[in-house]
Amino acid sequence: MSESCRGEHLAVGTEILLGQIANSHARTVSLEFANNGFFIYHHSAVGDNMGRIVEAFRVAASRSNVVVVTGGLGPTADDLTKEALAQFLGRRLVMSEEALRQIEAYFRSRQRKMPEQNRKQALCIEGGEMIANPNGTAPGLYIEAGGVHYFLLPGPPLEMVPMLRNEVLPRLRRLFPHEQVLVSRVLHFCGIGESDVDEQIPHLLAQANPTVAPLAGEGEMLLRITASAPDEAAARARIAEVETELRQRFSRYIYGVDDESLPSVVGKLLRTRGETLAVAESCTGGGLSSMITGVPGSSAYYLGGVVAYHNRVKEQVLGVPAATLAEFGAVSEQTARAMAEGVRRLFGADWGMATTGIAGPDGGTPEKPVGLVYVAVAGAGGTQVYRLQLRGSREQIRLRASKQVLWRMWQALAGYEPRAGAN
Amino acid sequence: MSESCRGEHLAVGTEILLGQIANSHARTVSLEFANNGFFIYHHSAVGDNMGRIVEAFRVAASRSNVVVVTGGLGPTADDLTKEALAQFLGRRLVMSEEALRQIEAYFRSRQRKMPEQNRKQALCIEGGEMIANPNGTAPGLYIEAGGVHYFLLPGPPLEMVPMLRNEVLPRLRRLFPHEQVLVSRVLHFCGIGESDVDEQIPHLLAQANPTVAPLAGEGEMLLRITASAPDEAAARARIAEVETELRQRFSRYIYGVDDESLPSVVGKLLRTRGETLAVAESCTGGGLSSMITGVPGSSAYYLGGVVAYHNRVKEQVLGVPAATLAEFGAVSEQTARAMAEGVRRLFGADWGMATTGIAGPDGGTPEKPVGLVYVAVAGAGGTQVYRLQLRGSREQIRLRASKQVLWRMWQALAGYEPRAGAN
Repeated sequence: MSESCRGEHLAVGTEILLGQIANSHARTVSLEFANNGFFIYHHSAVGDNMGRIVEAFRVAASRSNVVVVTGGLGPTADDLTKEALAQFLGRRLVMSEEALRQIEAYFRSRQRKMPEQNRKQALCIEGGEMIANPNGTAPGLYIEAGGVHYFLLPGPPLEMVPMLRNEVLPRLRRLFPHEQVLVSRVLHFCGIGESDVDEQIPHLLAQANPTVAPLAGEGEMLLRITASAPDEAAARARIAEVETELRQRFSRYIYGVDDESLPSVVGKLLRTRGETLAVAESCTGGGLSSMITGVPGSSAYYLGGVVAYHNRVKEQVLGVPAATLAEFGAVSEQTARAMAEGVRRLFGADWGMATTGIAGPDGGTPEKPVGLVYVAVAGAGGTQVYRLQLRGSREQIRLRASKQVLWRMWQALAGYEPRAGAN
Repeated sequence: MSESCRGEHLAVGTEILLGQIANSHARTVSLEFANNGFFIYHHSAVGDNMGRIVEAFRVAASRSNVVVVTGGLGPTADDLTKEALAQFLGRRLVMSEEALRQIEAYFRSRQRKMPEQNRKQALCIEGGEMIANPNGTAPGLYIEAGGVHYFLLPGPPLEMVPMLRNEVLPRLRRLFPHEQVLVSRVLHFCGIGESDVDEQIPHLLAQANPTVAPLAGEGEMLLRITASAPDEAAARARIAEVETELRQRFSRYIYGVDDESLPSVVGKLLRTRGETLAVAESCTGGGLSSMITGVPGSSAYYLGGVVAYHNRVKEQVLGVPAATLAEFGAVSEQTARAMAEGVRRLFGADWGMATTGIAGPDGGTPEKPVGLVYVAVAGAGGTQVYRLQLRGSREQIRLRASKQVLWRMWQALAGYEPRAGAN
């Protein structure tokens, strides 16, 4: 069979379109497909409306040959997915005695009688097959028509996901056996902009296999490398080739891969070295500590921090000299340095980090505008201070300052010499 | 104008279809539309592929008259949203000198020269208007063609959301003025579950005008009251009637309305009283401080905090007696009390708050399971400690603990007597 799988996910439910729940199934279906070397080309969502669901099937059938539908298989009058597909295909709904027995058994196992309205969950589209649902009352349904494979699955995640994994994907592997394996790897960059990376690698961005594509990140930049090959090892080898080139060019900016984050890689290095960390925050206001402690197990290396919002706290708790604050101000290289060294000393930590700046929206001056932030990393070998001019909202400035100082910490731990200027 | 708004959201980005990121914008756009009395009838997502994006526009234009698109406005060759819409509409792309100046200014303010490839972000579709993006380099774009209003917005949430609220929705309100005015007001509850509220107000949940609907919240509960009436004053009067009943029933749980948050109402009360606050955090790890300092102007009342992750910090910095830690442990009523009182004393604040608990996923024991958290509020009149057993992931437990202690702080400031037990 030479045709390849062109997948589509359709979510049915007005609550999704009202924003009352997130359509998390779209991502789940995409991930499960990708892990099996299949690709989803479209996500869509439509409300509990007969005409619009039928129309959504028409659109899906015109462009996809595998359509996974979630939701709308419940017992109420609002649940219309099967009815809509039957109407679109011009087929009848017929009672499946086997599905009916399974639903009745499900209720019996919970000491309940099946309500009359649940009978409709046992209806099958003529020519289709029911897909058993071990975790709920709504069976799924599979039907092929006009070269399109439809899989209807119930909406509750604990019912949908096992059916997707145990029923849908094995069928797809049989239907599309010659599929190439698709493998992705994401590289995380900090301290360099997307356009500065792109300018150096036009040849990689233009190539077809592996593809190299930038992803949106906040305060960092992600590049996704995706390779297809007959098997996973061959795909990984193709990725490795591209990754080697990227690391040669951008080594000091690439702090992690896939699920890694700045606080997780910093934590891993601290653990390996058996060293500890403390932080002093002004403008990041606790956000930096919160990122660090968001990593499970961070108590192994993170001693704690001081949020020194008021100058009195900088002075009395962290030991920033009053003269430094008076002469240079709270937002200065000197204060950042004294904060990092102060918290390192106070907590008896191997490393100290500090942030001080103006997150806005108010408080900026011509000399010290909103977005001016000093970050510092203090260790046994000395203290490095970096001046940043960040853009964005208060929230963005706080987040970006936290990521910048974590990136500098990572560089110090990973053995990159500090460089003057922007990087 | 009698035509009504038929909205659609289209997300562009291969990373969504690979499942690498969740398409959270779909829900955001739906919620913001709903809050303004508009309805989204379709969500869809498509990858970075010219032909498929053009086709997605064709489908959208055939069924919707407002199409909000997110993503694909970056500077790289993969960013195709504007190009695809131009192709679909059969229009040219022309350089917007004003947008170009704004992008150049954005780079200049960061001491950088605009890379050549960013020029394409200043391209406008003939007949369209650029939408300024104060938080990034990608301007948005608005164009009306064939009775369909297209809004193209950048993908990063911190850029997209302000543009949606400040540019797209005001335009829609002008384009589709409601005959009836629709006014909403959101009440924020903390310390009580949705089902406990719902049980007491079936008559309100069932009525048609105003409608009363619960919204999903994290660590709190929201009720949206929406009234329609010939003018705003009449709608507000209808809302006030329902709000009065809700406040009679749930006064001590309703801490705020609309855009208010727990840290903003606590801040407002502290400002009014001219009092100051300091916090000591263990399990919340800086997240509580970060919430407090997320409020602009919080430096007026927030002195700072200590993240006391290691017991040595609890002892040496906050002055928690070694005997207390040894006898009762770090996660105990006694330690929470000593932390709140210690940070209040250390920082010379009017109020001290503290959190200590087990956020998981590891570290739980039969006696002290994951989710056990003690929070404390210390003031001139004494210290109150509350024991919580929270559910959820590490992130959820941390967030819920922060909200619970802020809610207790709000109760103390608003004059509610502490009650034994759950509330």
